[in-house]
Amino acid sequence: MYYPEIKILDCTIRDGGLMNNWQFPKEMVKDLFQGLVEAGVDYAELGYRVDKKMFSPKDHGPWRFCDEEDLREVAYKCDTKVSVMCDVGRTDYDTIIPASESVISMMRVACYVKEVDKGIHLMNHVKSLGYETTLNLMAVSTNLEPELDEALAQIAETDVDVVYLVDSFGYFYSEQIHYLADKYKSKLPGKEIGVHCHDNQLLAFANTIEAIIKNIHYVDGSIFGMGRGAGNCTTELLLSFLKNPKYRLRPVLSLIDKYFIEMKAKLQWGYEIPYMITGSLNKHPRPGIAFVKQRREGSKQSFQEYYDTLTDIDAVD
Amino acid sequence: MYYPEIKILDCTIRDGGLMNNWQFPKEMVKDLFQGLVEAGVDYAELGYRVDKKMFSPKDHGPWRFCDEEDLREVAYKCDTKVSVMCDVGRTDYDTIIPASESVISMMRVACYVKEVDKGIHLMNHVKSLGYETTLNLMAVSTNLEPELDEALAQIAETDVDVVYLVDSFGYFYSEQIHYLADKYKSKLPGKEIGVHCHDNQLLAFANTIEAIIKNIHYVDGSIFGMGRGAGNCTTELLLSFLKNPKYRLRPVLSLIDKYFIEMKAKLQWGYEIPYMITGSLNKHPRPGIAFVKQRREGSKQSFQEYYDTLTDIDAVD
Repeated sequence: MYYPEIKILDCTIRDGGLMNNWQFPKEMVKDLFQGLVEAGVDYAELGYRVDKKMFSPKDHGPWRFCDEEDLREVAYKCDTKVSVMCDVGRTDYDTIIPASESVISMMRVACYVKEVDKGIHLMNHVKSLGYETTLNLMAVSTNLEPELDEALAQIAETDVDVVYLVDSFGYFYSEQIHYLADKYKSKLPGKEIGVHCHDNQLLAFANTIEAIIKNIHYVDGSIFGMGRGAGNCTTELLLSFLKNPKYRLRPVLSLIDKYFIEMKAKLQWGYEIPYMITGSLNKHPRPGIAFVKQRREGSKQSFQEYYDTLTDIDAVD
Repeated sequence: MYYPEIKILDCTIRDGGLMNNWQFPKEMVKDLFQGLVEAGVDYAELGYRVDKKMFSPKDHGPWRFCDEEDLREVAYKCDTKVSVMCDVGRTDYDTIIPASESVISMMRVACYVKEVDKGIHLMNHVKSLGYETTLNLMAVSTNLEPELDEALAQIAETDVDVVYLVDSFGYFYSEQIHYLADKYKSKLPGKEIGVHCHDNQLLAFANTIEAIIKNIHYVDGSIFGMGRGAGNCTTELLLSFLKNPKYRLRPVLSLIDKYFIEMKAKLQWGYEIPYMITGSLNKHPRPGIAFVKQRREGSKQSFQEYYDTLTDIDAVD
């Protein structure tokens, strides 16, 4: 039996853009959006909206900025809603037009727990412009419980539509997902909860299923798992798992064939030992990404040396 | 808190051998065994024991046969016990010497549910020779419930030490693992239960954890997931997850560095769309393996065409 409340958000372009600096050709993003429409995916997240005073369009692809005119070239208003992510501290409030004039339906606000006031401020702004809103609390595996509880209490007082449980480092096992899902559900009455998992320990899909079992309704995936480092829960596995008759795997298979096999061979996201180690140690993937890059450039540092560095209690963390 | 009852069985050479026809050099298997000893792994499965009248040593590597003298060149009696697998219908009973004279400690017997009588017969034989024994019931995702129940009832009457829940096709979600783990536990009182998962849907490690939560104590992994098609639960993730102080990840990292990065680049097991599709459809990976091979040889068949073939209700299954 399916639950119509469950929504798939495909974040391939937004999260995958971390692997290619958001340099996806417009024709490809247009194809991808159309494929997601045919697959019945509920939201297509087509990038970030960052401040051009902080990041230059000369140095980054268009999906780092998601200008309205760029979005309109690849997407349109339909049952697959366009989502864009804003980071706290990197958003020019003035670039956000009213939802009624935009092709964007949902604005997702990402922040750390310690920045939750800034996150709520930005979320209130986009909400006042008529968008569906989310708050994505990043890296909650690193917070002390009272800090997280306080943030959730603050968020409970807002009008945000969806609050995301984010496993930024790919650290959680099913046990932690169950615990935090229960916490989010109980501390945020009346709010929808979402989940966003990374695949450092090959648990992104499994943890997303566990979240669904715990009545979390918004689930993030990316096509072929494209995303930084180990990547994400895959959209194709979600489409295959979920029973809503509107979901169709077939259009996404075609996208994978056409674009993602080649991109993955070149950009190489996915399960690798350096990401598995940062995940298991509850660390940001940064040192893993640096290590993988150095090895591709000929570094002879071994996995053991890398592991010893990351587990050295005397090292600066 | 850790449970000393939990045992890791590394089946890299046995299951990974399906990818290279068991052509692992002896020096490598020796290194691997020593690494598993240092990692605290409980069992190292070094291959199959198949009948040389059925398979010629000219056509297959030594770990297809696991002659006593070959095993003794790479392994020795210690806390990491040597395991070898026998398939029903492919085993020459006369080649099995008494356990007291062998470096092998455990013989695992693999069979389908419909062959359970043959499996029990072979298991009784190796048990009578003094080995630890298992029965690995393959592909139980394809059996009707009464068939499985009958097989388990027969097995309950035997002296087998461990009965394995095997997800041969990588089809199960946590829900099915929970259900079957409960069934095996209740139908096989006093027996240890093991689990062997495949990674077609990126759930091998997750499902192994779920099995552990359900008090299954014998868990299979292979280094870097090496195994047919999508591969297996990885040994490194098990070593990182389990809390027994004797388990050490570090020696396995060194093995991965030295051997498995290069082997995976060449042999290419792991998550791929054709295996994900057979897994999600509860089918043997055979058509996926054939498709992947044909694509590498230049075939232009698309994922969609492959999917359509496998889901065509009129096609011979």
